[in-house]
Amino acid sequence: METVIPFDATTPKTRLGDVLDPDERNTVSRVLLQDVLDAVTNAGLDPTVIATEPIEVDAALRIDHRPLTPLISDEIDAHTPLVVIMADLGLLQSQQVSKLVDTAGDVVLAPGLGGGTNALVVRNEDFEVDFHGTSFRDHCTIANSRGLSVATVDSFRLGVDVDEPQDLLEVLLHSSGRTAAWLTEAGFEIEATNGRPSIRR
Amino acid sequence: METVIPFDATTPKTRLGDVLDPDERNTVSRVLLQDVLDAVTNAGLDPTVIATEPIEVDAALRIDHRPLTPLISDEIDAHTPLVVIMADLGLLQSQQVSKLVDTAGDVVLAPGLGGGTNALVVRNEDFEVDFHGTSFRDHCTIANSRGLSVATVDSFRLGVDVDEPQDLLEVLLHSSGRTAAWLTEAGFEIEATNGRPSIRR
Repeated sequence: METVIPFDATTPKTRLGDVLDPDERNTVSRVLLQDVLDAVTNAGLDPTVIATEPIEVDAALRIDHRPLTPLISDEIDAHTPLVVIMADLGLLQSQQVSKLVDTAGDVVLAPGLGGGTNALVVRNEDFEVDFHGTSFRDHCTIANSRGLSVATVDSFRLGVDVDEPQDLLEVLLHSSGRTAAWLTEAGFEIEATNGRPSIRR
Repeated sequence: METVIPFDATTPKTRLGDVLDPDERNTVSRVLLQDVLDAVTNAGLDPTVIATEPIEVDAALRIDHRPLTPLISDEIDAHTPLVVIMADLGLLQSQQVSKLVDTAGDVVLAPGLGGGTNALVVRNEDFEVDFHGTSFRDHCTIANSRGLSVATVDSFRLGVDVDEPQDLLEVLLHSSGRTAAWLTEAGFEIEATNGRPSIRR
């Protein structure tokens, strides 16, 4: 099944600016991408990374400078079924990728924390994406308005995308992948002040 | 299966203090509890609420003033298998409760955001709980140290507990239960400033 992983190679992970400098944000975004690629290929898919700039990556690569919404809209026009998986799902394992693609529905959505859509399967070209704002809700609305069936995948590991420092805590707690190893190597560890865990460096 | 839902009736949901006054926090905590009870009873379980003070609730009720760790430790000593489900899982549906109790393992854990344990099944009385700090990791460690098998349940709906204002956004986005209705009635709505959704009142 055609599988794409969009990747912002230009100014990735700006909301991690309080804990990582620009070079480190570049690095961690690429390590996260590699963790996602591991999960996707281990699920038997053959993904294409669509990056805003050339990057070194062990997968098929295409360069496209456009924002997510027109980019994925054109992908849907070009081929359905289409699988789209975000590049910053630091807890992702192959099982959740398999669950996603094995779920029936014209449109299959994996909600992300904060209203986003962290992964989707589109099996009908009448669907259209809108990644701005509350995209999960908007994607449900768009599908319903076009008479398309919608299914959701209930997964903690699909739901956590790495945007904020607190999300790095989830990676340290629940992943043994490359990003967790990189964070540990960079000196991050878990601290529990007054019983509430956070990360420190 | 013996099922308990611990409930802090005394000073609930203090971290919602920026958006709700003490009376409202009391109310929303009880509405959340009722949503959890709906999910649990719809899954065919017959739960007992263990509250720190007398409350009005449509379920078996016991009063116990102790903190979570000694309380649940004594429950495990008294009867296994034991199901424990937190009272603030605002997205919970019966399907996730069924998935939890249908998962095999001496200890079955549902991780919560921020390192917590939002639900568990204990089938061996050698297990012990420790709800302070990174309880999910600590529960894995305790089980492993005693030779007990551990399984985890990967669920977004089990993973989101309502502690912070941002968690109320998840309730408004993904639930049609009593808490979502109460929040709407109280004037809360979703706002997307610069594409990042949050709640406003």
